[in-house]
Order: sequence, then C-alpha cells, then structure tokens
Amino acid sequence: MVDQNSSPVGVADLRPTEEAIGTARSARRASPDAPLLAAVRGETPSRRPMWMMRQAGRSLPEYREIRKDVGMLDSCFRPDLLAEITLQPVRRHDADAAILFSDIVVPLKAAGVGVDIVAGRGPVLESPVRTADAVEALPVVDPSQLEAVVEGIGGILDELRDDQVLIGFAGAPFTLASYLIEGGPSKNHGVTKAMMYSQPQLWHALMDKLAPTVVRFLQVQIEAGADAVQLFDSWAGFLSLRDYREFVAPYSQKIIEAVRPYDVPVIHFGVNTGELLGEMAAVGPDVIGIDWKTPLDVAAQRVTASLTAAHEAGDLRVSAERRVRAIQGNLDPAILLAGPEVIGEQVRRVCREADRAVAAGDARGHIFNLGHGVLPETDPDAITRAFAEMHGQ
Amino acid sequence: MVDQNSSPVGVADLRPTEEAIGTARSARRASPDAPLLAAVRGETPSRRPMWMMRQAGRSLPEYREIRKDVGMLDSCFRPDLLAEITLQPVRRHDADAAILFSDIVVPLKAAGVGVDIVAGRGPVLESPVRTADAVEALPVVDPSQLEAVVEGIGGILDELRDDQVLIGFAGAPFTLASYLIEGGPSKNHGVTKAMMYSQPQLWHALMDKLAPTVVRFLQVQIEAGADAVQLFDSWAGFLSLRDYREFVAPYSQKIIEAVRPYDVPVIHFGVNTGELLGEMAAVGPDVIGIDWKTPLDVAAQRVTASLTAAHEAGDLRVSAERRVRAIQGNLDPAILLAGPEVIGEQVRRVCREADRAVAAGDARGHIFNLGHGVLPETDPDAITRAFAEMHGQ
Repeated sequence: MVDQNSSPVGVADLRPTEEAIGTARSARRASPDAPLLAAVRGETPSRRPMWMMRQAGRSLPEYREIRKDVGMLDSCFRPDLLAEITLQPVRRHDADAAILFSDIVVPLKAAGVGVDIVAGRGPVLESPVRTADAVEALPVVDPSQLEAVVEGIGGILDELRDDQVLIGFAGAPFTLASYLIEGGPSKNHGVTKAMMYSQPQLWHALMDKLAPTVVRFLQVQIEAGADAVQLFDSWAGFLSLRDYREFVAPYSQKIIEAVRPYDVPVIHFGVNTGELLGEMAAVGPDVIGIDWKTPLDVAAQRVTASLTAAHEAGDLRVSAERRVRAIQGNLDPAILLAGPEVIGEQVRRVCREADRAVAAGDARGHIFNLGHGVLPETDPDAITRAFAEMHGQ
Repeated sequence: MVDQNSSPVGVADLRPTEEAIGTARSARRASPDAPLLAAVRGETPSRRPMWMMRQAGRSLPEYREIRKDVGMLDSCFRPDLLAEITLQPVRRHDADAAILFSDIVVPLKAAGVGVDIVAGRGPVLESPVRTADAVEALPVVDPSQLEAVVEGIGGILDELRDDQVLIGFAGAPFTLASYLIEGGPSKNHGVTKAMMYSQPQLWHALMDKLAPTVVRFLQVQIEAGADAVQLFDSWAGFLSLRDYREFVAPYSQKIIEAVRPYDVPVIHFGVNTGELLGEMAAVGPDVIGIDWKTPLDVAAQRVTASLTAAHEAGDLRVSAERRVRAIQGNLDPAILLAGPEVIGEQVRRVCREADRAVAAGDARGHIFNLGHGVLPETDPDAITRAFAEMHGQ
C-alpha cells in the first residue's frame, strides 16, 4: 500500500493501452446480436432484453442456501460462489444479462480498507475517513488484488449463452465516499455533505483518490470479459442538482471516459434521481437507468431536453450525436409482490412507455429492468413470471 | 370503539359547524399581521417568517433532559411536556412559528390502536392491518380522546407572542396507512404497495377509515387555537405520480376540504416529492413545502405549470385564483452541520431562489424552513445562527 500512496494514481494514467483493449475484446464472448447489445445500438433486438437489479441474491432459496455459512464479502472473493450466485437467476428466470454478484465496497476491501458487511445493516468501516491523513492513507486498488473476481468471471462466461451478456458492476465514487465518511450506511449523509460543503478541498481529494479504484475495478472486469458495465450511484439522489454537478459529476465523467476506449456499454443508475437525470446523462453513459417514479417516456424526454440545452449552451461533455441513448427500467419492485395479474398489466405499461420514448426519438432502445433492486421478500416464481410476461409480448 | 365502528364516520360528516368555526376563531390569538400569516396572504411580512421541521426534539439538550425518563408517545399525551417541548425551540431560536410536538401515530394511539414508538426504530404496531376485518376494526379517533393535546395547546398559546403562530400537525393517510400495513417503519413500503395494487378495494376502505381520524386530529387542534396546520405525507415520495393520483390524492383532498371552512392556512409536505408537487398542490393546500432537492423557484414554476395545465384541462380541483400559493423550504438540513460561513451563504441562496419565485408570480410568499427535519446531531447553536442569519437579511 505504501508504494501506491507515495506515487499517486490519477484517472488520466489509467486509460487502457491498445493491448488492454485487445485483451478485453478477445475475452468477450457474447454475440454482437445479443439482445441487450442490439438494444443499446438502436437495432431491433431478437427479443426485448431484460434483467433485474439484485436478481442475484436473497429472493432465491438457492442463494440463501449457498450463503448459509459464508459472509457476504467472503462470497464476493470466492470465484466458485461468485460465479454460481451470478448464474443462479440467469438459469432460473432466463435473463438476458447476468449482473456480476458483488458489492459496492468490494474494490475497497480488495485494496485493504478495513470494511465488513454486517447482516441487516450493510457495509461498516473500521474507521471512518474524515481527515486529510485518512484520505492520503486510503489505498488505490491494484488489479492483482482482484484476481478472485477475474477467476469468477471466467466461470460465469463458461456457462452464459452467447445471446446473454455479463454486466460488470461498480459503485460510483459519491456512494463509496459516503460509506467511507459516515463509517457505514447513513439515513441522511449528513457528515458526507458537511465535508463537501465545508471542506471542499478534502472532498475533492477523496473523490480523486476513489476514482482510480473505481476505474480499475471496472477495467479488471472488462478485461476479464464483461460485455457491459453498470456504474451505480445508489445515494446520488440525496443531492440537489447543483451539488451533484459540482461535487460528483466530474468524477463519474472521468471514470466513464477512462473505460470508454473498451467500447462496452456503460449503464448509469441511481434511485431518486428524477432531478439529476439530465446531468447523469451528461457524464457520458450509453444507458440511463430510471427509477420507478418517473415514467420512461417522461424521463427520456427530460434527458433529451437537458442534453439539448447543455449542448446548445456549449457544454463540451455533450456532443450532438450523443443526445439519444438507451433507457433501462423501471418496474416498481413492489409490483412483484402484487400477484400475476398486476405484474402482467404493469409490465405491459412499462413497455408501452418505453416504446413511446423510442418512437419520440428520445431513446435508441429499451432494456427492461426494475426501478430499483429486487426486494428480498419477493417470491422467485413472481420474478420468473415477470420475465416470461415481458419476453412473451 | 364498538359504537364508532357500527356507525361509520365519513369525512363529509366532519365538516365543521358554524359554532365550531366560531370556537376556533375565538381560540386563535396570533395577530393577523404575524409574519407567517402575512406571507401566506401575499402581503409583505414584517420579517420573513421562519421555522424548522423537527425544531422541537433531539437537537436540543433541554429536550433530551425533559425526555430522559419519558417515552416518546407518553410525552405527546402529557400537556405540560407537550407545551414545554413545543416552546423550547421557539424561545431558543426566536422562531416565527411553534410546531406542535407530536407524532404521526398520536391520533391512532389516542383512538386505542396498539402502537408504540421504539427508540431507534420508530412506530411499531402490535398487529399490522392487512385484512378487511382489521380495517373494519380500526377505530376512528373521538375528540374526547385528544383532550391532552387540547390542554397542551392551551399552555403553548399562553406563552407565544402574538407575532408567533402555532402550527398544528397531522400525518397524511398514505403515511399512516404504511405504518399500519407494514407494522412499522419500512424501507420500501412493499406490503403497502402490494395491497394498493392487488386489493384496491381494501386499500380504499383503509384510506376511508383513516381520513376521518386525520380530519378530527386537525380539527381538535384548530378548535383549540392552532393558527395553521401542516399535513405531512412523509412517505408519499415513494410513489409514482400515477399511483399518488389514484390512491392518495383524493383522501388528502377530502381532508383539506374538511378543514378549509376554518380559514387557517394548510401546509402540505413530503420528502422526495419532486415528481408529485403539482398534484400535491392540486389537492388544495395554501402552502407547499419543498424538499432540498428542487430549488424553490424551479419547484414553484413546476407547480404553476402543473396547476395551469390541470385548470385548462377542466380539473375541478383547481380554480384559476388558486394558481399561486406560498412556498415553504428548503435548506438542506445537512447544511446546519457545515459551519457558519456555509450556513450564511446557503440561507441567502434559498432566500434568493424564493424571491425569484415570488417575482415570477409563482408564489405569493415564502416561509423559510429546512427541506426536511432537523438532524438529531445538529448543534443547537448552528440552528440559532441560521435563524439569526435569515432574520438579519
């Protein structure tokens, strides 16, 4: 760790070499016609692609069984479990994408940060990061520390069909910063925001330190063969647009830029981000995930309006041709508790709203998903029905 | 309770008599020129009125002292404590309004529902309300069960200056329903939404049962002398606009209509309601509270646009002259943790945004508040400074 800290790593240093891009390209095995990839490109997919956030996890009895005697973070570092847990929902529900089973704090844990996931609570830090010294001491993850993830991905790719994609996963730096500063899950992110407002230099130093860890975590997954990645900013919705723009967006943008040369779709999502959608699109993802509070057509229109205004105002992040992208979402996870009839109706409603967005030119395509993660108490058969209902349309 | 259940109470039966309206009028003692009342009427107040949600409570050492040996709900039913706790922040911070110290479940507890507030968790029900029988058995509060609140209000009014108003308080029926159905605080309101979607008749029966309790709780406070009331729909922001409109808005509207004849301002607030603001305004409050995520000028403009569209589409809830109302908010509570300089800057920013809303004709006036409740860990001196900063402008 000491060596890494003595030579700070910037995101700019992390743009992939031609060799790394080649490695990633040859590791990927999904067909270019896989429905998810086709939808992102704006082509007509063979069927509308569908996956669910947290599809791997507590809703499945086979997951609860396999995790019985294994801690959450331990399971993220055991290649056999990682692969098995990632694949369980894909087999059971015939999903169009596997989402790498992981946790937002995995790259921090890999780097040597003292963090564990406490059942019923979430990630808890041994000591919160609130001073310049603590930020300075924070390690940047080294790819060699993520070999278990690489091996796990190998196991996943062995089993996926070539019309199914593997989506890699990373927490965005605001959400990571909040865990580090608060020392655990927070209801209101008060200490995090107080640092942001009253010690902006310290805040920016922390974000500068975290961004390379996020980039490396994504790069490792892409070079191991991930076909797409999702950058989760779970807590970004606690911020106003003004604060998101100043304190968060530049880092998410740098991260997305650093993985752009691999040419794999980047999905960006946070819950409660209705006010932020335009800015989250401006940081450069290919796909915007929408929570269940904003209908997909309304959300896509809002994104187009915001990007158009930014482009016309000379915002260099937004080029004319990047105005339209795919949308992902947005069935309320609670719908899955409401019985087959309601599930059917609401799945059809979401598809209609997405189709309107595409017809209006506000999105190239639609990836069906929930508007947030699967609730742990969800009956797995209800999930399977939702997949079947959607694919049967 | 049995008698009440055998003759169901509808909200329509609860419109106040002329006598009740007279009682309320003679109980009120705030001057018509009190800044908060002037701001709602669109006059220029002697100073910009300011209070904070949760100003009474855990941020104050005198509150922690007085609550040392008294349970939360017990304190809401002890007139002396109720008055003292309500007045503590008004004295300390020179607030322009006292907010009645209470809890969303107080009228349920008064009616005999088995509920207690568990420290660190929140309201917990003895048995959740999930069946037609349980809804049928749910009592409607009787004014006689709220005498402690009436007596407490008497104590508050004795001490308030006549330029200070007392704001009464009630939880809106969606939030109450969620506690009843889930059996306690919920992260995602899954069981609540599942009932809403799959058993709409049962849902509507529950809301019909809850609305009269909310009305009576507000009426009791107004007839005891409250100068204004705030209807909190804390969890409404978990709903999409479509669901809010169908399952919630009609009840909030009926409640507001039932207290309208008293001619006291009604404030309506929920957090994470950026997508719902227009509809929350359409149910008829005089003042809309805005959380910290939407700048006040943007929020007010959104409300005007939504009400105008509804009026033009023939929405009978919205009359032409009700297009402009006061706005309340919206400093991020976390700002109070960030030191005096940041507090000063951000207080001034919120005032500027409110002034723009008023100048644009989107609001009659501004009531300064936070965008959510005071965080328990807030230094009371920081709160006092924020009041002084705002009033000093």
